[in-house]
Amino acid sequence: MANKTNISTLGEFGLIRHLTKDIHPKDSTTRYGIGDDAAVLDFKTYQTLVTTDILLEGIHFNLEYVPLKHLGYKAAVVNFSDIYAMNGRPTQLLVSLGVSKRFSVEDLEELYSGLRLACEAYGVDIVGGDTTASMTGLTISITCIGTAKKEDIVYRNGAQINDLICCTGNLGAAYMGLQLLERERAVGESDPEKAQAAFQGKEYILERQIKPEARKDIIAALKKAGIHPTSMMDISDGLSSELLHICKQSGVGCSVYADKLPIDYQSAAMAEELNMDIVTCALNGGEDYELLFTISQKDYEKIIPVEDVNIIGYIQKPELGCNLVGRNGEEIALKAQGFNAFTD
Amino acid sequence: MANKTNISTLGEFGLIRHLTKDIHPKDSTTRYGIGDDAAVLDFKTYQTLVTTDILLEGIHFNLEYVPLKHLGYKAAVVNFSDIYAMNGRPTQLLVSLGVSKRFSVEDLEELYSGLRLACEAYGVDIVGGDTTASMTGLTISITCIGTAKKEDIVYRNGAQINDLICCTGNLGAAYMGLQLLERERAVGESDPEKAQAAFQGKEYILERQIKPEARKDIIAALKKAGIHPTSMMDISDGLSSELLHICKQSGVGCSVYADKLPIDYQSAAMAEELNMDIVTCALNGGEDYELLFTISQKDYEKIIPVEDVNIIGYIQKPELGCNLVGRNGEEIALKAQGFNAFTD
Repeated sequence: MANKTNISTLGEFGLIRHLTKDIHPKDSTTRYGIGDDAAVLDFKTYQTLVTTDILLEGIHFNLEYVPLKHLGYKAAVVNFSDIYAMNGRPTQLLVSLGVSKRFSVEDLEELYSGLRLACEAYGVDIVGGDTTASMTGLTISITCIGTAKKEDIVYRNGAQINDLICCTGNLGAAYMGLQLLERERAVGESDPEKAQAAFQGKEYILERQIKPEARKDIIAALKKAGIHPTSMMDISDGLSSELLHICKQSGVGCSVYADKLPIDYQSAAMAEELNMDIVTCALNGGEDYELLFTISQKDYEKIIPVEDVNIIGYIQKPELGCNLVGRNGEEIALKAQGFNAFTD
Repeated sequence: MANKTNISTLGEFGLIRHLTKDIHPKDSTTRYGIGDDAAVLDFKTYQTLVTTDILLEGIHFNLEYVPLKHLGYKAAVVNFSDIYAMNGRPTQLLVSLGVSKRFSVEDLEELYSGLRLACEAYGVDIVGGDTTASMTGLTISITCIGTAKKEDIVYRNGAQINDLICCTGNLGAAYMGLQLLERERAVGESDPEKAQAAFQGKEYILERQIKPEARKDIIAALKKAGIHPTSMMDISDGLSSELLHICKQSGVGCSVYADKLPIDYQSAAMAEELNMDIVTCALNGGEDYELLFTISQKDYEKIIPVEDVNIIGYIQKPELGCNLVGRNGEEIALKAQGFNAFTD
């Protein structure tokens, strides 16, 4: 970048003012945003939803291949996804940053531009946060508030025996995008042009990793179709891990069919290229931010016309366990192999 | 500590479960706490307050002299303080941690025990959060939710000309406690017994730094006295800095009297010992978490019986500026010299 302004020229309050000066709340539930000890929200008779997420450089993102603007966008969207997964509407965002001296004012403007783009796209107000120095790297902590009518909220613990298991979009694409980025980073160090060429025809899986979207559209479509899921969560750690959460909390088992798992052709091709098993990637990849939900069998006719929803299995008695049914009918117990940041 | 369990033995989900397994919501506004995509809160016709804070090792705390339990307590309390500063009641807390391999499960239990002690003392529910690995050190990001009736909320922007300026407790003690800790850390490296002895008679300023409290009692007392402040905030960055915020946002000026600033004798003695000016420390020290507020002159009679409140000056026309009046009547413009984490 041409200009790099040292953060210390603005100071802590100056930096916060600079980054937030033209942020103005729009949602009717925001009564007061940035600029006091706390933001003030008014949900009237609606209930309040709240979720939080912390992202650390070197653990959750690598700035060598993720632009700051995209990182900001993704940090916001993954929190919106949690609110949609409650069948709610995200309304406010709080943004806390820890920033080392390596970053300039312009870098933080980039990050904020991504956060704001996401907030505008989803109709969410930035109402507060904290920005401070850090000893090393970038820390992003996001809290998202949302709202829903009491009777609309969908928890993880409501799945019933014989319910249908649905998931939206397709699985494993974000993970395959990450594999591609990591491979090309190594290649790119020796030959930048070659790395660039390797992205051709793989734009979709890259976008799924770098600029994911939350399924606001599905929440609207389910409402329109008159379907109230019996349980729901978003797929951030991988389908297996999330299904096991729903089954454990609902006290049920499940059967999921390998040949029903939705997989995009770019994901499949990438897995082939890397000699990986695409079903394993779809089950455990994570970061897809699709919705996983269960519906009553009586809603079967209603779900068919809803676009981009796949029925992948059904809920069964707990004593039957949580299984993946293979192409030849063989059953394998599902395992949570989701991302474990604490492994050596 | 005797036992040190490596965090990787529990894994990410296991660790979160371990740390939160016996946390149960108590407040009537918490409908669902930890264990879903988002917590669910119900404030009915009350408004929702939300504030967030990020604390980074090496910037905001030094584990060489702050025990993890105290750190947890303080991290929670400083957020409660922000909710009280809106004349609200803190109700829920979300806790996000970034933890390097240097920390054990027992370390995090200590941190959580402090967080929980604070929550129990103030009647706040822990309803969610995130725990993840970090490359370096400890990151603590806290979001606090609170509630208040619309008509009770006090903003920073309501101070009126001729209002009285009040502050609670005393100022500069937390800063003097920090000076003492930093001095003794250096001494302690060569002679631990000598450092221990140096704390005698200085317990109060140490406690103000290590285990601050939020002024829940003052909020209750003001309510009982029938006083609705015209503006209010908590003193985290120092009186000067906070007063300038109130004056700027209210579009007014102020006069504050040096000889009215409340100072504890231990703070004064410590300043003397370190050859520092105690008035400067009281104005700029920060971390006192006292409340700064303005009241209408008509409430003068009502405020007198309220314990631990000091009238330190008055609000004036903006063109008269924001001034400190010295013992001999001389006026000096107030400056925000608060903590600037971005300075080299």
